Amino acid sequence: MSNGDIFAGEVIGTAILILFGAGVCAAVTLHHSKAKASGWIVISFGWGMAVLAGAYTAAPLSGGHLNPAVTVGIAVDTGEWGKVWVYVLGQMAGAMLGAVLAYLAYYAQFAANKDKETALPTLGVFSTIPEVRHPVANLLTEIIATVGLVLPVLAFGMTKGLGESGTQVLIVALLVVGIGLSLGGPTGYAINPARDLGPRIVHAVLPIPNKGTSDWGYAWVPVAGPLIGGALSGLVCNAAF
Amino acid sequence: MSNGDIFAGEVIGTAILILFGAGVCAAVTLHHSKAKASGWIVISFGWGMAVLAGAYTAAPLSGGHLNPAVTVGIAVDTGEWGKVWVYVLGQMAGAMLGAVLAYLAYYAQFAANKDKETALPTLGVFSTIPEVRHPVANLLTEIIATVGLVLPVLAFGMTKGLGESGTQVLIVALLVVGIGLSLGGPTGYAINPARDLGPRIVHAVLPIPNKGTSDWGYAWVPVAGPLIGGALSGLVCNAAF
Amino acid sequence: MSNGDIFAGEVIGTAILILFGAGVCAAVTLHHSKAKASGWIVISFGWGMAVLAGAYTAAPLSGGHLNPAVTVGIAVDTGEWGKVWVYVLGQMAGAMLGAVLAYLAYYAQFAANKDKETALPTLGVFSTIPEVRHPVANLLTEIIATVGLVLPVLAFGMTKGLGESGTQVLIVALLVVGIGLSLGGPTGYAINPARDLGPRIVHAVLPIPNKGTSDWGYAWVPVAGPLIGGALSGLVCNAAF
Amino acid sequence: MSNGDIFAGEVIGTAILILFGAGVCAAVTLHHSKAKASGWIVISFGWGMAVLAGAYTAAPLSGGHLNPAVTVGIAVDTGEWGKVWVYVLGQMAGAMLGAVLAYLAYYAQFAANKDKETALPTLGVFSTIPEVRHPVANLLTEIIATVGLVLPVLAFGMTKGLGESGTQVLIVALLVVGIGLSLGGPTGYAINPARDLGPRIVHAVLPIPNKGTSDWGYAWVPVAGPLIGGALSGLVCNAAF
Repeated sequence: MSNGDIFAGEVIGTAILILFGAGVCAAVTLHHSKAKASGWIVISFGWGMAVLAGAYTAAPLSGGHLNPAVTVGIAVDTGEWGKVWVYVLGQMAGAMLGAVLAYLAYYAQFAANKDKETALPTLGVFSTIPEVRHPVANLLTEIIATVGLVLPVLAFGMTKGLGESGTQVLIVALLVVGIGLSLGGPTGYAINPARDLGPRIVHAVLPIPNKGTSDWGYAWVPVAGPLIGGALSGLVCNAAF
Repeated sequence: MSNGDIFAGEVIGTAILILFGAGVCAAVTLHHSKAKASGWIVISFGWGMAVLAGAYTAAPLSGGHLNPAVTVGIAVDTGEWGKVWVYVLGQMAGAMLGAVLAYLAYYAQFAANKDKETALPTLGVFSTIPEVRHPVANLLTEIIATVGLVLPVLAFGMTKGLGESGTQVLIVALLVVGIGLSLGGPTGYAINPARDLGPRIVHAVLPIPNKGTSDWGYAWVPVAGPLIGGALSGLVCNAAF
Repeated sequence: MSNGDIFAGEVIGTAILILFGAGVCAAVTLHHSKAKASGWIVISFGWGMAVLAGAYTAAPLSGGHLNPAVTVGIAVDTGEWGKVWVYVLGQMAGAMLGAVLAYLAYYAQFAANKDKETALPTLGVFSTIPEVRHPVANLLTEIIATVGLVLPVLAFGMTKGLGESGTQVLIVALLVVGIGLSLGGPTGYAINPARDLGPRIVHAVLPIPNKGTSDWGYAWVPVAGPLIGGALSGLVCNAAF
Repeated sequence: MSNGDIFAGEVIGTAILILFGAGVCAAVTLHHSKAKASGWIVISFGWGMAVLAGAYTAAPLSGGHLNPAVTVGIAVDTGEWGKVWVYVLGQMAGAMLGAVLAYLAYYAQFAANKDKETALPTLGVFSTIPEVRHPVANLLTEIIATVGLVLPVLAFGMTKGLGESGTQVLIVALLVVGIGLSLGGPTGYAINPARDLGPRIVHAVLPIPNKGTSDWGYAWVPVAGPLIGGALSGLVCNAAF
């Protein structure tokens, strides 16, 4: 795969991932949305199908990592680091583009966030916020949840038939549904540095009424945790398989 | 594929799509339904499985587009426009047939909509209604959501194995679940001109008690938005892949 | 396939279908169940996964029809009626066995239905009950919903790859999820004469405290409707494909 | 497969199973979780995707049993008992490891369980608790639910194509979703001795504030029931298929 194809694939795929992912967060939390308060099953399936949409679209171009933790996990497992920067650049650019698209898709809902009395903070549409602010525990949650993503993803490549039948991305998407359901409770499961940092930058920049804080004090956790988790997964995979 | 097969496939497939799709809207919104008020997860999976049912049934005859936005997206991508009119005619006829079948399946529920005090407007069973009426934002939402459908659908064709294993339509159905969850909040995700316009005509004609307005002032948005989104997807696919 | 294998397959498969299907109805409706009042999404996925479990188990022995409407639809389509009686006998025996197993699995819940003040009628665990009692509309609903099942099932056989990859039953299971979500609202979607009549007989016989009526006046609708819908599907399939 | 690979695969796979499974129980029941009170559909899909994650990860090493009831069912069916002890040892070690990981992922939530007035008993995160305490009925429920798991799992191996396309584990995962929805109501569906006993030991040992009883009086039911159900499934499969 050429650097151009990898970059294009990761931009398009991650943009779709975040359009759908930030979209479902907007759908469930913003006023004047038909999906308002429709619950955790909607959030979890929304992010899972976001991976399905983004990764299948990117697959023919870049293989569809869409996540620096996955890219780093593969690099640690295989020892090949040469293309990592292309993947991560594309992922960051795509995540920011996707956050803008989600903002535009929910433009009328964000615009209606005018009234101070009913206005909601909007960071949750873009980035993760822990339920209990406890950096060590939050970091640990993100590390464990990311191992729960990247270790299986690395192992899936070894299951005969998944690749040939084209269903590998489907399995990854359902895995992400599972991570949301099971491990998303404490921190909102970033499990992907680009998924959290890219939209946080967009949140800081966009002129959303009553948007509230972009919470930069927490921003390092959903970057460091997933990177550590991805690297750990590569080490375990390399040792055990 | 002959024009007759294409027309028959699109009529049957789109009729099943709208029978299931309008069906789930009836199930969730009408009085005296076991699924009354069962929430957005039911709506989103209902429309996704509607695509699964309709597209697998149509696939052997017409390939199962069931959506002018998909047909236009493929035409823009490939440059082949000769059969577009056959597809779109079949889709419109099928959408109207499906809306009538959904009405018949929920006949007792519609008939019970007699009492002025408890009667509900019924357009939402047939066609989309925006939460915030803002034509530019609504159009933008429909364009973005349709790109979220058609661009991945065009890319799926390039994933080795999905076609051979027959699971391609399954992936599209799950993608539609995802669009509903993530991008359906603002406008109810038409993402398909036939899906909105065909049932709207049926709503205008059917003798439903207390049926309320057919809201023709909004009808152009869920036609124009998806067509623009489909064409844009064809352009992006042609350029990037 | 020998008559013995067909009979054994349909008994085992339909027993699993009804164990899971009546099970999910018990789970959602009976007191002292962890899934009490968990909603229509649980009912619909429960019945869909019931088909997945039963049909994959029966597939190697009988092909896994588990439903006289499917058996009749195939017979009308192909003109081969010789084995129909073996299938239907197995389906009826399996449905009754499955209902007994579901009763045993929820024995403590049924036994706790003692107190007249909190006791609930129990027929809904076993058989379907319409929301609005209107025989013509109810029959129409069952016919349309069964066409929504059997016509796609017949068409799935023509999608290249679904059989080879073994995913055909998965698609049928998801189709059944969709029928529940979309077309189950008015009558509770029997769409299968054995699914309704077998458990109704068991309900009439079992010594359940405060079990209420077995509602024999309605019993013909969920038998006749699915048989008509299955036959219609065979005719449409034969003509169109 | 070497004993080392089997042990490693079952440890890693069962650890992932219990991390996700205990995780979703923590997510739904503990205070300060985003998924608090999100219902039975979340529990059932959470455990199903837990199987998907664990079994696909273990598959290349050990085949991914993750459950002594499955291992015993296969041994009864095939008559090969030589490796059973390796599987069961790995499953028990993995289940305990997974329970510790789930505890760490929800560390801040468990730590917040300090206040006597709002503190909740925590055993339900780790092990099953029956709704109605009735050992015979509870045992029967676990036997029937385990047959509902192991008999289909044994039969899936006979469906042509599922193995080749790599989708067999996906079908098993969806089967587990179905068992949760349909047969989990009375006892919380252990259907796996390691899934219940391993985390119960961990619950007894971990220093969780206000953790409540580990309920050892009930512990034999979710061990004996699944083992009986697994053996019965092996007998039926051997006889019928």
